[in-house]
Amino acid sequence: MSLPAEFHALAKRVNNWGRWGADDEIGTLNLLTPGVVREAAATVRSGRRVALALPLRQDGVQTGLIPGRVNPLHTMTAINQEIFGPGTVAVSDDAVTMGLQAATHWDGLTHVSHSGRLYNNRPADSVTAHGGATVLGIEKAPPIVSRGVLLDVARARREDSGGPGRLPAGHTVTPEDLDAAEELAGTRVRPGDIVLVRTGQIQHYLAGDRDAYAFPSPGLSVRTPEWFHARDVAAVAVDTLTFEIFPPEIDGLWMPVHALHLVEMGMIQGQNWNLEELAGACAEENRYAFFLTAMAEPFVGGAGTPVAPVAVL
Amino acid sequence: MSLPAEFHALAKRVNNWGRWGADDEIGTLNLLTPGVVREAAATVRSGRRVALALPLRQDGVQTGLIPGRVNPLHTMTAINQEIFGPGTVAVSDDAVTMGLQAATHWDGLTHVSHSGRLYNNRPADSVTAHGGATVLGIEKAPPIVSRGVLLDVARARREDSGGPGRLPAGHTVTPEDLDAAEELAGTRVRPGDIVLVRTGQIQHYLAGDRDAYAFPSPGLSVRTPEWFHARDVAAVAVDTLTFEIFPPEIDGLWMPVHALHLVEMGMIQGQNWNLEELAGACAEENRYAFFLTAMAEPFVGGAGTPVAPVAVL
Amino acid sequence: MSLPAEFHALAKRVNNWGRWGADDEIGTLNLLTPGVVREAAATVRSGRRVALALPLRQDGVQTGLIPGRVNPLHTMTAINQEIFGPGTVAVSDDAVTMGLQAATHWDGLTHVSHSGRLYNNRPADSVTAHGGATVLGIEKAPPIVSRGVLLDVARARREDSGGPGRLPAGHTVTPEDLDAAEELAGTRVRPGDIVLVRTGQIQHYLAGDRDAYAFPSPGLSVRTPEWFHARDVAAVAVDTLTFEIFPPEIDGLWMPVHALHLVEMGMIQGQNWNLEELAGACAEENRYAFFLTAMAEPFVGGAGTPVAPVAVL
Amino acid sequence: MSLPAEFHALAKRVNNWGRWGADDEIGTLNLLTPGVVREAAATVRSGRRVALALPLRQDGVQTGLIPGRVNPLHTMTAINQEIFGPGTVAVSDDAVTMGLQAATHWDGLTHVSHSGRLYNNRPADSVTAHGGATVLGIEKAPPIVSRGVLLDVARARREDSGGPGRLPAGHTVTPEDLDAAEELAGTRVRPGDIVLVRTGQIQHYLAGDRDAYAFPSPGLSVRTPEWFHARDVAAVAVDTLTFEIFPPEIDGLWMPVHALHLVEMGMIQGQNWNLEELAGACAEENRYAFFLTAMAEPFVGGAGTPVAPVAVL
Repeated sequence: MSLPAEFHALAKRVNNWGRWGADDEIGTLNLLTPGVVREAAATVRSGRRVALALPLRQDGVQTGLIPGRVNPLHTMTAINQEIFGPGTVAVSDDAVTMGLQAATHWDGLTHVSHSGRLYNNRPADSVTAHGGATVLGIEKAPPIVSRGVLLDVARARREDSGGPGRLPAGHTVTPEDLDAAEELAGTRVRPGDIVLVRTGQIQHYLAGDRDAYAFPSPGLSVRTPEWFHARDVAAVAVDTLTFEIFPPEIDGLWMPVHALHLVEMGMIQGQNWNLEELAGACAEENRYAFFLTAMAEPFVGGAGTPVAPVAVL
Repeated sequence: MSLPAEFHALAKRVNNWGRWGADDEIGTLNLLTPGVVREAAATVRSGRRVALALPLRQDGVQTGLIPGRVNPLHTMTAINQEIFGPGTVAVSDDAVTMGLQAATHWDGLTHVSHSGRLYNNRPADSVTAHGGATVLGIEKAPPIVSRGVLLDVARARREDSGGPGRLPAGHTVTPEDLDAAEELAGTRVRPGDIVLVRTGQIQHYLAGDRDAYAFPSPGLSVRTPEWFHARDVAAVAVDTLTFEIFPPEIDGLWMPVHALHLVEMGMIQGQNWNLEELAGACAEENRYAFFLTAMAEPFVGGAGTPVAPVAVL
Repeated sequence: MSLPAEFHALAKRVNNWGRWGADDEIGTLNLLTPGVVREAAATVRSGRRVALALPLRQDGVQTGLIPGRVNPLHTMTAINQEIFGPGTVAVSDDAVTMGLQAATHWDGLTHVSHSGRLYNNRPADSVTAHGGATVLGIEKAPPIVSRGVLLDVARARREDSGGPGRLPAGHTVTPEDLDAAEELAGTRVRPGDIVLVRTGQIQHYLAGDRDAYAFPSPGLSVRTPEWFHARDVAAVAVDTLTFEIFPPEIDGLWMPVHALHLVEMGMIQGQNWNLEELAGACAEENRYAFFLTAMAEPFVGGAGTPVAPVAVL
Repeated sequence: MSLPAEFHALAKRVNNWGRWGADDEIGTLNLLTPGVVREAAATVRSGRRVALALPLRQDGVQTGLIPGRVNPLHTMTAINQEIFGPGTVAVSDDAVTMGLQAATHWDGLTHVSHSGRLYNNRPADSVTAHGGATVLGIEKAPPIVSRGVLLDVARARREDSGGPGRLPAGHTVTPEDLDAAEELAGTRVRPGDIVLVRTGQIQHYLAGDRDAYAFPSPGLSVRTPEWFHARDVAAVAVDTLTFEIFPPEIDGLWMPVHALHLVEMGMIQGQNWNLEELAGACAEENRYAFFLTAMAEPFVGGAGTPVAPVAVL
């Protein structure tokens, strides 16, 4: 079995291999130029800050269905230990074990491969057990700072069937949905932007139902990578676990959006971003563009990274 | 044995307990107001970005001397796994075990206690094995975004004895050193700023010698918390493992700066920040103030957090 | 709130504090004398070996209800890595993160405390975050080798209501049940024996239903510690998650059997032991006593330990 | 580069592929028959028990040279937590992260491969990141119970140059050394035995010097696998980190004994076994054969396992 012709046709249309040289390891993050960053900083008006990461806790979004993607196990390695003797200043330390894709995260460029290849024609077997991603690792990412644009599809589509401000589970987010949300946003998405697509699905998790959150889930259509490619965005993040519509649109074609973004475009993508407070802030201030930082933790060889993004309005 | 009178006198002078209410859990991060953030964004000129985190790897800065503070163990939980069947898109995932204080990090407010107390008169025993920091946890921190100011003490003191651009191991960074570095910076440190104090000590680690990096180490004097308190800064970070001068200035008084910052002032502090590239950029652009984000990963109950800070010039 | 008088009366009757000296840290494991071991070895007839541990895997018996008691996360840290150069012998290594009480395990003597006390009147606060069990740790356990006796209560009670060879969920295992199983076993339990009590409850887990396995669960009555104390056994292990009847017999008295065994008697106890194959073997050979080793992994400061017991018939 | 002809000649002479069928996954553990076990049990005379595992602690034998093989990080996930409310029985739990080959352990059959092959002609790439050892995993091992024979080479060779009862670092343990130790033991090694070869090297670690322990190290010669093959032993364990002589005998031929034992013979092997107390007991009782259990922890897909062996004399 192999990927269908339809996929390969899409792949050809969004492919960025070689665009930034044969040795490039960061893909669309090349679009984060000083000029883009300057313009992003210029969007700051109110100075309001909105954090977009979920709390890191053992009852996180992972349900156990994906082996290895474990919720954070946070443990204290010292509690008020008087390491220099009785009566001295006391120390508390802690440690964690967690899947790098377990909570609010970026998928790195090696998170998926297809047909034996990673972005920029690198071989899939360059990912090894002892070295992790020996090319294209998340530690190669430059500082992720840009203009963020919230595409609040849930609001733009005034979806009520899925509850207030939430798309129903079966809703495939199409390019037309992105157009509608862009119009609501009142700004055109431009090269180097980081786009945040809101479905409202994370409301399930925030309400304590992580099974409903997981899937079925609304998500991006296989047609949306072309939209992002046309706008030349630097990255895309969403408020779902699966990123793309799940179960998938095309029978037997699993994770096509992952493959188009990560492998063909060389574009990192974010999942489990909490966009609820941000949606409220954008609606209040009636603007959907802001300064965004979403720094990768520089895990050497990482296929992904937890991220604590912040929007500054 | 208990802490000397000298310590208690210093403590009284910098104490912030009750300043933001009896229930406050974030201390000097209260100083990060929208106005401060707006002014910080206005410092952006060139759009140059500088990352300040060390790579996360197993041969990180920890030497094993502090039990439990383990360097990151990064492992792949899947490599090119065709989870939906042969020929489908393949997935690579990873996981990590690490001390939260192991690499570039923020000390959270519960990282140290003295005399049975944490910041804002909270009891030290509110830190528990199963819940971590049940008050004052790092997940309580608001988005850490402000103006950053580099106080390049190594450069200001033109220290050659410790090698080019590096203070010698025994150098205690005094308020006078901070004054000199502030003068070099050409800007006065103001309320809400995040101050980055450069000693150059991290050059040892970057050159492969983590024992030399660990200690003896230059670091902040017990007299500097008053300086930071007078300027009313939001946080302080440094490029050393020990933060403060180590071995300490006053015989038998271990970690007094930690105790003054974290317990008395309620001010988080950062260690193992790589300020080398930033120092070069600031010297080149001849300005030492910039936009800084240094988001805590929101570990529930965390006594600290890894951080991937970015300075935007 | 405190423990009821009924509990304290039971506690007094089974208490072993001081029996092996004020400094004793191993409790009833003192009963494992050379003579007991010799007699145990003499039980071997067929040479048949039966392993009693469940496989260690991520879909283990833990359901997530007990925070921190995580199923094993097994990861490869190297796969066929030619560490000495191309064409040389290649190495695969692995690592694990797991709760020590997650799978087939021994509860160590510090696993529970009551009224601020551990076994032998040691203070509960001798358990610390940085040191673990600073007294009574599992690493103090001598080699756990003795005569094992299977008390197959499920078989003795010919319980059909809970399915073939399995006690129903609400069945409290009483001293009378133990008497009946002992009669079936055809041997009297004697000092130093390790008693394995079979309920059949683990069949739920083996059939893939870990929720049914967890609870409600049949288990030992609060009256059984006196039985074990009278027989002077060295340890007791069972094939359930909760060890004792759960929910408990006496309203509001949680985990009394744990407290009586671990704190009062100083007797370690085992959970999640797979006794199914052993039950078949004992029935076939028509004898229920055998040579048993069930070595603690010597975790320094451990409150428990995974164990891979083996019965030799 | 490939393995030299000399290696392949040795490999051919000790190869067991197909001996127990094409599907066999346990190799020489097939030799652990009921008869062997019965005879092993019959060796018990004094009932004396000797544990052979090193304590599991963060300052274990690993020095950090082998990435991923991390010493145990033991943390408390609960300390005296009154999970059912104030005044109830309180619970302490713990967790661990550790390399499976970090301490006293068995190398499983997939721990090394050569020429793309594992034992019994299985492909090396059957070891995967998500599944571990999908064939030949350590969980396939039957209960490891047999007669143990201590071959105290250090004592037999009366080596004083390396200190009392310890071979010098450069000593290659030869078949002639094994003959001498067997003569000292007063029993002939026979099929199914588990042989413990003592060098005394672990005295370095016990004295606090783990660098001296690691290497250079005395160890088994490339000629010894033939000796073990001729005796048809079930397994071999030693008191060193490297198992075989290190640096190796033949320039550029790294880890040949590992490859011969694990890949060619299908024989698991043990490292970091503490044989010091056992050596004293055997000398005292003047017999070197005993009952041994050394159960693998059944990690599904494990390339190795920590082990807590016990000798019963």
